[in-house]
Amino acid sequence: MSDPSPELFFETVWGYQRTAALKGALELDLFTAVGEGNATAAAAAARCGASTRGVRILCDHLTVLGFLVKDGDRYALTPDSAAFLDRRSPAYLGGTVEFTLSPALEEAFRDVAGAVRRGGTGAAAGGTVAPDHPIWVRFARAMMPMMRGPAEELVNLVPVDSPPPRRVLDIAAGHGLFGIAFARRYPRAEVTAVDWAGVLEVARDNAAALGVAERYRTIAGSAFDVEWGAGYDVALLTNFLHHFDPATCERMLGKVHRALAPGGRAVTLEFVPNADRVSPAPAAGFSLVMLCTTPAGDAYTFAELDGMLGRAGFTRNTLHPLAAAPQQAIVSLA
Amino acid sequence: MSDPSPELFFETVWGYQRTAALKGALELDLFTAVGEGNATAAAAAARCGASTRGVRILCDHLTVLGFLVKDGDRYALTPDSAAFLDRRSPAYLGGTVEFTLSPALEEAFRDVAGAVRRGGTGAAAGGTVAPDHPIWVRFARAMMPMMRGPAEELVNLVPVDSPPPRRVLDIAAGHGLFGIAFARRYPRAEVTAVDWAGVLEVARDNAAALGVAERYRTIAGSAFDVEWGAGYDVALLTNFLHHFDPATCERMLGKVHRALAPGGRAVTLEFVPNADRVSPAPAAGFSLVMLCTTPAGDAYTFAELDGMLGRAGFTRNTLHPLAAAPQQAIVSLA
Repeated sequence: MSDPSPELFFETVWGYQRTAALKGALELDLFTAVGEGNATAAAAAARCGASTRGVRILCDHLTVLGFLVKDGDRYALTPDSAAFLDRRSPAYLGGTVEFTLSPALEEAFRDVAGAVRRGGTGAAAGGTVAPDHPIWVRFARAMMPMMRGPAEELVNLVPVDSPPPRRVLDIAAGHGLFGIAFARRYPRAEVTAVDWAGVLEVARDNAAALGVAERYRTIAGSAFDVEWGAGYDVALLTNFLHHFDPATCERMLGKVHRALAPGGRAVTLEFVPNADRVSPAPAAGFSLVMLCTTPAGDAYTFAELDGMLGRAGFTRNTLHPLAAAPQQAIVSLA
Repeated sequence: MSDPSPELFFETVWGYQRTAALKGALELDLFTAVGEGNATAAAAAARCGASTRGVRILCDHLTVLGFLVKDGDRYALTPDSAAFLDRRSPAYLGGTVEFTLSPALEEAFRDVAGAVRRGGTGAAAGGTVAPDHPIWVRFARAMMPMMRGPAEELVNLVPVDSPPPRRVLDIAAGHGLFGIAFARRYPRAEVTAVDWAGVLEVARDNAAALGVAERYRTIAGSAFDVEWGAGYDVALLTNFLHHFDPATCERMLGKVHRALAPGGRAVTLEFVPNADRVSPAPAAGFSLVMLCTTPAGDAYTFAELDGMLGRAGFTRNTLHPLAAAPQQAIVSLA
């Protein structure tokens, strides 16, 4: 047996510095500068309006972290950085830090011990589930590039051997891409999107940009309070349940069940850890985000979700891993 | 060739949350609680004065990160966590976060882009090299457990075939462990420790605790300004040069050279990257810490250090990797 090592400890302790280095590089648009061929520290510094010494040190650090490669005194992007961190790439993900490193999230993680003592967020008024919390406009704008793949996958999960869906309810629609994906696949489908008013502006912009504006209507307000009617063929409940305790989730699922037509389907997108709650890593680790940012949210196992859905009236809940997201989808029959 | 992956990007983005989770666990003394046998979330929560829900979520997160193992609903420490994160262990390292996650360091990393633009810290008055900066008392107290091994290694690097050293100068002594190790090895050696007054209190406490108080004298002030006399057999310059630009380093090395007796030796401890400046990772990555916390500090290659030492009058500079630290030692003949 090898001697104990403090390596994981120090690697984790210095994690915040790696995050900060990456954030700094994105703010300077350094990956784009290098991608454009500004290969030396001096050239990239001129392009970014920064000091050569600073760019040299940051580029060396990014090389150590694996974001750049270095040959002599010349830097180049890795294939991953070229795909996701060069602003000119269609798959650019740098904008996601507007959400993932937003002040509200960073603030929530300043005092993890406090959240553990309390059993929930220390942020005022319900944390990120407070009415009209500005983080959801950020989320809608910043995380959109992550959602195109999963949105397509969700559409594929709803069977088309039945008549195609005509009425789609998109609850906490955010960027709107999930509902919009249904509208694009089914030319006669009409989408009703529910979210805070500021968020719906983003969703409506996206619906217009993607050519489905005339079949896209919105209801502003809390999903728990608004009247959204009934007779829907599909209800989308994406990245929503994890913000709430099980009783609140069940209340929402009951409302969703009542909104669906007979034979209608709910599609739930969630971080679903295995029964051990410590795998797979992205889903299991997500629970701490809910502890720190909400009063009572969690990442629920499939058994827990299946129980909530069943008590709300759903039958035949099936779990589907997605290729393009750490979340999984649950398709439920009303 | 595989498709590009955003995995490294997101892993790095979420680094601050991993740091925060670990910091929270140390503040709660959760590792000690689990190490004592409080194996369930409820038992550990009672021990830590925290909520069961919060402890369950944090313990699951720490299991995902590799600090705990989980079997059913019972948690246990990994061998590494037992050795370094349980407060009852003699090798406990949890206290190092008082330095590594100190407000001054965290603050310095809030705006990496600004440091890159400027080419140095944005902190007032010289950053961490400002006179009497309180971070050095923190460093002396918090990082001591990391320094015992390297201090022993440094003593071993000074040959004993010459007459044993009688006068040892410990520049920027910090916790004092390097000089103290010489005093303990050589019963007739006297140590002169130089540092800010507040830091020297820590060093003197350690000298007393380790039984060498009567051979330990101190000079408070800046190493650049104080009169430390001449005729030393050994001068220790540990974790010092990287805070300054090369010209300032050379000025200090000249002063050190003049302090040494003929045949005396300087022992320099530094993060020394290879000539490529991107390996090995701990030494190369350290440069960014200097960019963000000092006006002009850096991690110097051996060729650079050898040049500075040579111009200051030293001959035969030899580089020695250490087993117990990411730094390397350079032994130089006066």
